[in-house]
Amino acid sequence: MDSAALLDLLGNENRRRILRLLSRKPCYVTEISEYLGVSPKAVIDHLRKLEEAGLVESHVDDGRRKYFSIARNLRLEVNVSPYEFGTKSAYSASPNLDITSWRHVSLHVDRANAARDGREDAHSGADDRDIAALAADLEQLEQLENELSMAQRWVQGRLTDTLDRISAHFEGVDGRFYGDLLRGLACGPETAESLAKKAEAPPEIVRDALEGLSAHGVVDRDGDHWRLVAGEP
Amino acid sequence: MDSAALLDLLGNENRRRILRLLSRKPCYVTEISEYLGVSPKAVIDHLRKLEEAGLVESHVDDGRRKYFSIARNLRLEVNVSPYEFGTKSAYSASPNLDITSWRHVSLHVDRANAARDGREDAHSGADDRDIAALAADLEQLEQLENELSMAQRWVQGRLTDTLDRISAHFEGVDGRFYGDLLRGLACGPETAESLAKKAEAPPEIVRDALEGLSAHGVVDRDGDHWRLVAGEP
Repeated sequence: MDSAALLDLLGNENRRRILRLLSRKPCYVTEISEYLGVSPKAVIDHLRKLEEAGLVESHVDDGRRKYFSIARNLRLEVNVSPYEFGTKSAYSASPNLDITSWRHVSLHVDRANAARDGREDAHSGADDRDIAALAADLEQLEQLENELSMAQRWVQGRLTDTLDRISAHFEGVDGRFYGDLLRGLACGPETAESLAKKAEAPPEIVRDALEGLSAHGVVDRDGDHWRLVAGEP
Repeated sequence: MDSAALLDLLGNENRRRILRLLSRKPCYVTEISEYLGVSPKAVIDHLRKLEEAGLVESHVDDGRRKYFSIARNLRLEVNVSPYEFGTKSAYSASPNLDITSWRHVSLHVDRANAARDGREDAHSGADDRDIAALAADLEQLEQLENELSMAQRWVQGRLTDTLDRISAHFEGVDGRFYGDLLRGLACGPETAESLAKKAEAPPEIVRDALEGLSAHGVVDRDGDHWRLVAGEP
């Protein structure tokens, strides 16, 4: 979708709070209105704008209640520099994307890095390098930027895919809650209390869930901290 | 800076237009006001907000005229997915950053990719993989996302650095203009006309500049198209 339209939407604090809430669980209007302390009329207006932009979608459950949720993966990148004001937005790349084309991301980094090291000595001089070499650097960096953006979109798609699978694994129980716990541990060991805060769940329930995961060998405990047990690929 | 404050600032179309204009060249209030078709009072108000946030800075030239320009490199990333609404903003990484720590970015990608390929056959089944392996995927992907973000910030810093050097190389002439031309060619061959449009300059001037760069062996011509000559590192 259009980056400008997306920035207009995200420029509103209440719309950002709605998106944050929906990223935790699908919600209906009254829930959102109470959580935000904003009138249902205003919530409906925000949801309509988000739905028109394709960010949010709704479905009606068995009890005829209309639930709203985030429709799909989307990434926005904004670059501000003395030479650039650039915005880029894109849906996440397909998990089937052939990533072999940017498997050599690190090679380009090495190249750019080598070029930098080469001129370290004459850092203050402007004429120390041939203009053609600077232009070649520019070319490498632009290409690297595009590859890294594409890689980020691929990672986002894979993350959602993995969280979908985790949710499906705990079918019947609250799979999204287990996804939150595991994701909370994915950045390093945590206490049950800090995980409870992250997942916005009561600490007792988080502790029970961790004990259950521990019995299945998914997590283990080191004093007060819980951590992931490395899985076999 | 704070992502929410940044999104509030960028949520305004005229502020985005001001940033886009300042990324082409430093400007004074009357210039911006005329370009945007917005009152000087409104422009001053937008500039004040951008300056307070540290996005824009000003300096007074010899003729006592106050020029505004973009203060520094900044990146904003927004992730929207059914499981996440995440915003991340950061100043660009120092060019002196030790990038050896993420030189192996591609290795992680390979790992995640291998995991995906391994379960291609049972794509629809939820219980086809051990939950511990899914948690390990999550961990790898979170780490990869952080590394890619850091790499993108590094690239942004290097791009600005390279454009600074190109500007300095053409001291006295309009260095920024040559930077625009070379950057325009960095993504592939272009005609003088399309480059003129990109750089918002008259085609004759662009053609003259290209002929000059060609005489120095920086660019060459293939029919109607101009392209960069690969430089020696």
